Amino acid sequence: MSNTFGKIFRLTTFGESHGAAIGGIIDGMPSGIRVDMELLTDDLKRRRPGQSAITTSRQETDEVEILSGIYEGVTTGTPIAFMVKNKDARSEDYKRVAETFRPSHADLTYAFKYGVRDPRGGGRSSARETIARVVGGAFAKMILKKIGVEITAYTSSIGNVAVKKHYDELDFGMIEKSMVRCPDPTTTEAMIQEIWAAKSEGDTVGGVVTCVIRNCPIGLGEPCYDKLQATLAYAMMGINAVKGFEYGSGFEGTTRRGSQENDPIYYDAEKGKIDFRTNNSGGIQGGISNGATIYFKVGFKPVATIMKEQHTIDNALQETVLKMEGRHDPCVVPRAVPIVEAMAAMVILDAYLQNCTTTGKVITPITSIEL
Amino acid sequence: MSNTFGKIFRLTTFGESHGAAIGGIIDGMPSGIRVDMELLTDDLKRRRPGQSAITTSRQETDEVEILSGIYEGVTTGTPIAFMVKNKDARSEDYKRVAETFRPSHADLTYAFKYGVRDPRGGGRSSARETIARVVGGAFAKMILKKIGVEITAYTSSIGNVAVKKHYDELDFGMIEKSMVRCPDPTTTEAMIQEIWAAKSEGDTVGGVVTCVIRNCPIGLGEPCYDKLQATLAYAMMGINAVKGFEYGSGFEGTTRRGSQENDPIYYDAEKGKIDFRTNNSGGIQGGISNGATIYFKVGFKPVATIMKEQHTIDNALQETVLKMEGRHDPCVVPRAVPIVEAMAAMVILDAYLQNCTTTGKVITPITSIEL
Amino acid sequence: MSNTFGKIFRLTTFGESHGAAIGGIIDGMPSGIRVDMELLTDDLKRRRPGQSAITTSRQETDEVEILSGIYEGVTTGTPIAFMVKNKDARSEDYKRVAETFRPSHADLTYAFKYGVRDPRGGGRSSARETIARVVGGAFAKMILKKIGVEITAYTSSIGNVAVKKHYDELDFGMIEKSMVRCPDPTTTEAMIQEIWAAKSEGDTVGGVVTCVIRNCPIGLGEPCYDKLQATLAYAMMGINAVKGFEYGSGFEGTTRRGSQENDPIYYDAEKGKIDFRTNNSGGIQGGISNGATIYFKVGFKPVATIMKEQHTIDNALQETVLKMEGRHDPCVVPRAVPIVEAMAAMVILDAYLQNCTTTGKVITPITSIEL
Amino acid sequence: MSNTFGKIFRLTTFGESHGAAIGGIIDGMPSGIRVDMELLTDDLKRRRPGQSAITTSRQETDEVEILSGIYEGVTTGTPIAFMVKNKDARSEDYKRVAETFRPSHADLTYAFKYGVRDPRGGGRSSARETIARVVGGAFAKMILKKIGVEITAYTSSIGNVAVKKHYDELDFGMIEKSMVRCPDPTTTEAMIQEIWAAKSEGDTVGGVVTCVIRNCPIGLGEPCYDKLQATLAYAMMGINAVKGFEYGSGFEGTTRRGSQENDPIYYDAEKGKIDFRTNNSGGIQGGISNGATIYFKVGFKPVATIMKEQHTIDNALQETVLKMEGRHDPCVVPRAVPIVEAMAAMVILDAYLQNCTTTGKVITPITSIEL
Repeated sequence: MSNTFGKIFRLTTFGESHGAAIGGIIDGMPSGIRVDMELLTDDLKRRRPGQSAITTSRQETDEVEILSGIYEGVTTGTPIAFMVKNKDARSEDYKRVAETFRPSHADLTYAFKYGVRDPRGGGRSSARETIARVVGGAFAKMILKKIGVEITAYTSSIGNVAVKKHYDELDFGMIEKSMVRCPDPTTTEAMIQEIWAAKSEGDTVGGVVTCVIRNCPIGLGEPCYDKLQATLAYAMMGINAVKGFEYGSGFEGTTRRGSQENDPIYYDAEKGKIDFRTNNSGGIQGGISNGATIYFKVGFKPVATIMKEQHTIDNALQETVLKMEGRHDPCVVPRAVPIVEAMAAMVILDAYLQNCTTTGKVITPITSIEL
Repeated sequence: MSNTFGKIFRLTTFGESHGAAIGGIIDGMPSGIRVDMELLTDDLKRRRPGQSAITTSRQETDEVEILSGIYEGVTTGTPIAFMVKNKDARSEDYKRVAETFRPSHADLTYAFKYGVRDPRGGGRSSARETIARVVGGAFAKMILKKIGVEITAYTSSIGNVAVKKHYDELDFGMIEKSMVRCPDPTTTEAMIQEIWAAKSEGDTVGGVVTCVIRNCPIGLGEPCYDKLQATLAYAMMGINAVKGFEYGSGFEGTTRRGSQENDPIYYDAEKGKIDFRTNNSGGIQGGISNGATIYFKVGFKPVATIMKEQHTIDNALQETVLKMEGRHDPCVVPRAVPIVEAMAAMVILDAYLQNCTTTGKVITPITSIEL
Repeated sequence: MSNTFGKIFRLTTFGESHGAAIGGIIDGMPSGIRVDMELLTDDLKRRRPGQSAITTSRQETDEVEILSGIYEGVTTGTPIAFMVKNKDARSEDYKRVAETFRPSHADLTYAFKYGVRDPRGGGRSSARETIARVVGGAFAKMILKKIGVEITAYTSSIGNVAVKKHYDELDFGMIEKSMVRCPDPTTTEAMIQEIWAAKSEGDTVGGVVTCVIRNCPIGLGEPCYDKLQATLAYAMMGINAVKGFEYGSGFEGTTRRGSQENDPIYYDAEKGKIDFRTNNSGGIQGGISNGATIYFKVGFKPVATIMKEQHTIDNALQETVLKMEGRHDPCVVPRAVPIVEAMAAMVILDAYLQNCTTTGKVITPITSIEL
Repeated sequence: MSNTFGKIFRLTTFGESHGAAIGGIIDGMPSGIRVDMELLTDDLKRRRPGQSAITTSRQETDEVEILSGIYEGVTTGTPIAFMVKNKDARSEDYKRVAETFRPSHADLTYAFKYGVRDPRGGGRSSARETIARVVGGAFAKMILKKIGVEITAYTSSIGNVAVKKHYDELDFGMIEKSMVRCPDPTTTEAMIQEIWAAKSEGDTVGGVVTCVIRNCPIGLGEPCYDKLQATLAYAMMGINAVKGFEYGSGFEGTTRRGSQENDPIYYDAEKGKIDFRTNNSGGIQGGISNGATIYFKVGFKPVATIMKEQHTIDNALQETVLKMEGRHDPCVVPRAVPIVEAMAAMVILDAYLQNCTTTGKVITPITSIEL
């Protein structure tokens, strides 16, 4: 098990879907930061089940209790522990699961790896674990806001329905108004149809989240193994159900010529900053942020829990047919949007803090943030 | 800077393109393993420049010196240091580079991050750094061979030319016979044309490497942050020029329904093992290997160094036009094949060693390998 | 802040003296271990305040809640989170402290390091933090018991009163019968007098804890930086109030000749094992356990909180005289005994797990423990 | 094996006594620092064998080659690799050792841990490994000098001969003029006699090194596990032959009352800084530097290699009598002085860099150092 994320800003998490609680400890949070509880609870609400007709009907208020690390509303530099108690956990739903390995779930691999498994709600492999990621990300955002970094994710495709527009053409103010967190209203409608179509058949559907990071300082990322794209990929690929990651021009860029792909550099005298004519690099060159907008895509497979008959085996290795019941999302992508943001926030803050120790010339250190 | 890779099997590397040497230290290599120097030098040869008409003409024999950690041909459990001296380094080629930021290179970001940069051959950001990855991977392979794990990578696309066949339909014995490391002879021809077309215009072209890991034990991968796909993605995205990573059904899987994507489980009584009717999961479920073949794709952008005029700025922030000369690959993909394998080998071995401490029931520990 | 202890068996902790709770997360606990709650609660009782007339009168039942990682009484390999709620926290006692820096406390250094401090009960710097160490140690002991490792600590001196006997001459069964956790009854009486003498003057007194580890397997410890004595020293020196660490012959050994200090080796044919005529090495040679008994001493300074007038400064840098009131231990040493054991247990288990990945010849891996 | 030291400033080392070379990689060295080669070679000379009549006669010039990380005399922020080739290695001296376990050496424990051992000169367990520590420390000192931190170690006892004076009463300018690195001339004479007495009998003798760190900034150290005294202890206890560590009043402080031990605080208006009437805390409170002088003691056992007959066993477990020959130090303490300084320098710099990310109020960040 490896349940700690990050090097300087470190999130260590715990919790099973139907255990007592989900939570974590944030170590390395700089001191003197006023805690923005509204930011925290808003992000948790965006992740929560039961938000709309197209999400699971499991009802969890997901109220977070903070147990340490804050004094009179300000971070003290000591570890911040938090937990969210599990309330609406119907473990009886999972008796069947305890005896059978669900296809494309973690049941079988956990059973083989650990010799023991907690079958209630998927145990530790449940997406409910992502609550702790969102809390960690919210604390990271509290500092990033002070530096001016803006992280926004949105649903860019569901099944075969995709947003055609470039992220710069979209109105990010529309994201939270969309039931699927897609900033393009027309595409939103088609996406909802795609989800309903799947749900009506007891099926599920996948999709893609795009994440855009604006105003990231130059210099973040630690070659040669912790290139910024490598830690972003690591962060995203660790989210349940993620199958792929690409940044900048991504896989499409592999089909191009160097002369098409390279981003010409110029100096914008008016803004007093270096800029680029194109941004195929996705804001990262040589593993280090270059000051341009960082953007990347994260692909989610359809949720493995479907309400259709599936062939599998039971604990006694006998073949059997499984038909799941219970409360499950037909599409996880809209709820994954704040999780992608949270992971990105932790990666960027951690890179920022690491960069504070690198050199003496250019980068604003954590110590100069106005608290 | 973060120049250590891995948790238990740890590779720490050093070296600039035109410095004295490139090398590293492997810590955590289990003792008692007979060193297979042939495997090591073969992998280095596959990575080496100057292999064929389509690679850079820089000539480096890349002879590796091992400085420690081996006694009478056997690993002693102490750190294995190695280095490859740089010989054919023509630093005078880089005078222009010292004054100008090459588009889509690391020149600008290194300059801003560190305040200082070694412009000779790209310094630390040069792909010559990957020599050390190949050596690390070779030592990992020496143990993986004993466990029976087979790791094979190949070029699956160059520009718009792609292998259409599934990896199970390909003859991996053909890979090293192909100038571009593509196991499909017809596609090989088209790929070579694609590279020549780019080269003849002073341009470069990208592509994709597919990696296939057969016979990986069940149980490798450490949720929730070090899921096997997350550490594979981290490893691959840290290689120079990589823009994307996907495993199993990847991004295509995001367009599917759960009922199409899920892999039905069955028990193969004849082989006495659990198996799957399909392998959209790419051999990993819940972040843990499930015993099926692991496969993933790694997308490389075209090499940034082109022989065409490009707009950029110099150290004084003045706009200028840069036309590179010198010895550069028109396409890095064929030489990237052993690098992808090496990174995969280190990830799998590290996961294997971590898994030795996990439980008491199922997994073969390192201690039971016949040395 | 660095609140994670260990490499494979990792304890991450949180909590302030007068915050909501003290607790932690254990990551890397092997799966399939039946949880021994009696061992856990016994160790917590031994650490608890209010045990006897010579400890602080703060009353805390210190009941531990386990929030994750266990299913049907058995560890699942997922993180084990736990917490102990703070109940008898009288924060009003600390108003004076908030305005004044207590001599030889962490008040001043926390204030300068973090710019913010939680003055209630010393905040994070309170010895109440050691609850989490004891819980971590208890889980480590559950595995060590299966391997046969026995860890016993005892009070070997209080002020100028010291046990004269060698650890092999003492009856460890007497430790818990002694109010000061000293196995020698005569010395116990003198130690209690020493503590009462200090307490009656509003003063405090220091002392030494000796720890003895029997039946440790050969081969634990990871040179060259994680030598077993180095990680033991690191673990012990991190406990509040510890001023010194020595193992084996310790500082006394520095006055000897090599011919006196060296431990002759012989083969005990009857027991079928290698043994040593003397044990000045304290069971460790070259940083690796040699199979003999490991023993070391940990020196604790007197508690800094005294009921006498002391010269200091306040937040405005003005000199002032401070006279503390409240509930404090006149001597922390007896309650430190289980903490020293707990830290030793975590070090030994972590070394044991690391050693599972080292070689193939000698050491019993975790996988072969009878669960 | 664990051959990496430090968290942000990280030294990874390699090398056996009679292998090709000893060396390492420094990762996390801030960029823009002009390399002080004189400082580096001076420290290596102080550690070198063959310095005087009382050290081993092995002759090694210990010339260090730097392989990377420096451009035009300035650090670039990339890893600095270095090596010292082994020249005067007479492996034939060690044939006897290959068959016999030397008492109180690492021969037996390495053999059992790894199943394989390199017997030439003690292999990795040789004190020759400390060359790499000295190089790492020299780079750390290059930055610490800019911050004004002064680290000085000296021999404070050899056998039963000890310096009686307080470190503040000694003239540190005398240290390098003393053959045993003791700043007190009278004691120096007695110490030399002590060493000669041992040597003339084919024996060895131990001693203590005291280290004094002046002008350390307030705020260094990372509770609760990486308290500054804990990382110092870890660093020192990892040096070969060290048996004990204490800081400030140390073990003597355990015999005192709190009212004697506590350090009264006052404000020195003239100097404009907080200070302490006494310094029993040794410059560290709550695990964090308090601005006062840090001082600690490190106890070294007598060298295990003696020229007298010793009882031991051979590889076949047969008892035998061993009488060593060859070139060995009768007392390692004088040569250990620069090693203690080097480890202290790395600990302080690493704590300094970690502290750059902690808060925004008090500490000078790396970025504001005048380079």
